[in-house]
Amino acid sequence: MSEAHASTLGIIGMGLMGNAVMKMTGAERGWDVDAARCVNAVTAVDVFESCDVVFLCLPNSDVVRDVLEDAKLKLGQIIIDTTTGDPREMAALGAELGMRGVHYLDATVSGSSAQLLQRDVLVMVGGDVAVFEQCREWFAYFAREMVHVGPCGSGAKMKLVTNLVLGLNRAALAEGIAFAQEMELDLAQTLDVMRRSMAYSRIMDTKGEKMITQDFTPQAKLSQHLKDVRLMLSASSIPLPLSEAHRELLEKAEELGYGDADNSAVIQAILKP
Amino acid sequence: MSEAHASTLGIIGMGLMGNAVMKMTGAERGWDVDAARCVNAVTAVDVFESCDVVFLCLPNSDVVRDVLEDAKLKLGQIIIDTTTGDPREMAALGAELGMRGVHYLDATVSGSSAQLLQRDVLVMVGGDVAVFEQCREWFAYFAREMVHVGPCGSGAKMKLVTNLVLGLNRAALAEGIAFAQEMELDLAQTLDVMRRSMAYSRIMDTKGEKMITQDFTPQAKLSQHLKDVRLMLSASSIPLPLSEAHRELLEKAEELGYGDADNSAVIQAILKP
Repeated sequence: MSEAHASTLGIIGMGLMGNAVMKMTGAERGWDVDAARCVNAVTAVDVFESCDVVFLCLPNSDVVRDVLEDAKLKLGQIIIDTTTGDPREMAALGAELGMRGVHYLDATVSGSSAQLLQRDVLVMVGGDVAVFEQCREWFAYFAREMVHVGPCGSGAKMKLVTNLVLGLNRAALAEGIAFAQEMELDLAQTLDVMRRSMAYSRIMDTKGEKMITQDFTPQAKLSQHLKDVRLMLSASSIPLPLSEAHRELLEKAEELGYGDADNSAVIQAILKP
Repeated sequence: MSEAHASTLGIIGMGLMGNAVMKMTGAERGWDVDAARCVNAVTAVDVFESCDVVFLCLPNSDVVRDVLEDAKLKLGQIIIDTTTGDPREMAALGAELGMRGVHYLDATVSGSSAQLLQRDVLVMVGGDVAVFEQCREWFAYFAREMVHVGPCGSGAKMKLVTNLVLGLNRAALAEGIAFAQEMELDLAQTLDVMRRSMAYSRIMDTKGEKMITQDFTPQAKLSQHLKDVRLMLSASSIPLPLSEAHRELLEKAEELGYGDADNSAVIQAILKP
């Protein structure tokens, strides 16, 4: 029996991502603030006490810290944090847990919970490289690829960088489509031409049609991306002028009432200036 | 013998693009302000007088207008304008030439002259659809794909839209790499991760490495893209906030001395704020 199969797995945070991780890994216990979502656990303490490896699938670094403060962690236990959080917080957490003999990896996920269920996400991991190697087998349950990107906090950094570029590509697409609409070009043809040109970006495949048909049914919420953009700006030691303009656009879209809409609704802030 | 082969082709403007079009089409005459570049022509008039189809490969709409003012055009002659120009100018030119019995297509090219020589560009054509159909055979000499996008001026509009998105994707990549550098991530790995993630854009394939190694040997000049961005902003009836921020970045890069450098040098304006 492999090391991975001999270990017991638990999950803290049973939202879309936590649920998907449980399905793919066959984790034995899962806890959530919503009791209806709990699996073989009444409290978070139950999970930390009985599992060797604990995945955290939580909304932000503050919640992560709250949960870990109450936990009785065990020597040699492995905490794998998939939260998109503040890199500085995650580096600090890794150092603190290290002092208590606990291994901490910040393992951010590029891809949605739906893609995770198809074993089609990329995992970007910060932390001790030996621990990363030890965890490969667990990541392999749900990841197409996994890459070690540096010490604790690096997974979070890489997630912010990829998210910055992804979000700006989405906003660029929105500005292009809005411009095309103002110039009375055929929008479906415009999207088709762009996908076949050097202007192509992968986000066109998932958001282009939504922008053109104004179908803002949420796949990922606009306010969530605004939160991430604010995190990028606060984490950066240099000005990020495009992300500043992007933040203003997202705030405008929120004011227009699109906070809970899909993040493709950023186009509304350009069409209704 | 096909209609295309029976026609005589000429070219006005024998720079990189005009030269490439001549090589691929086997055009018989080419004229340029630089006499050393002329082929079987001493003046532009020679080309217009002896050719049924004339490609214009010129720097902007003003030069196009100057050249056409001096030309003696023939009834039924076809002018194919590949210049990235002002859509309103090109629509007006098409109408004026139409009154004189001359066919005008604005046929913008997505791709470089090097790609044109590999028959790997996309041509976006505005103008009369019957004339477009008649010209398919000539475009096929150098284009992977050709698409009719609307009345005169539409080729120029589509070029501006694709260029807007392409340029913003490039600037987004620059901001992401600059952010990664500030956070001390491994840059080659960051580019590799982004290319395999949802953040992927096609411009990463050509500009990512140049930004990381700071190799700004020009493939296309930064000042040229700044000129295009100004054209977008002036052609738009709505504010384009990301392109406004982009214009400021490009102006900053120009001030830093990167006007004649490759447009990937936009990263310098973010790294040296």
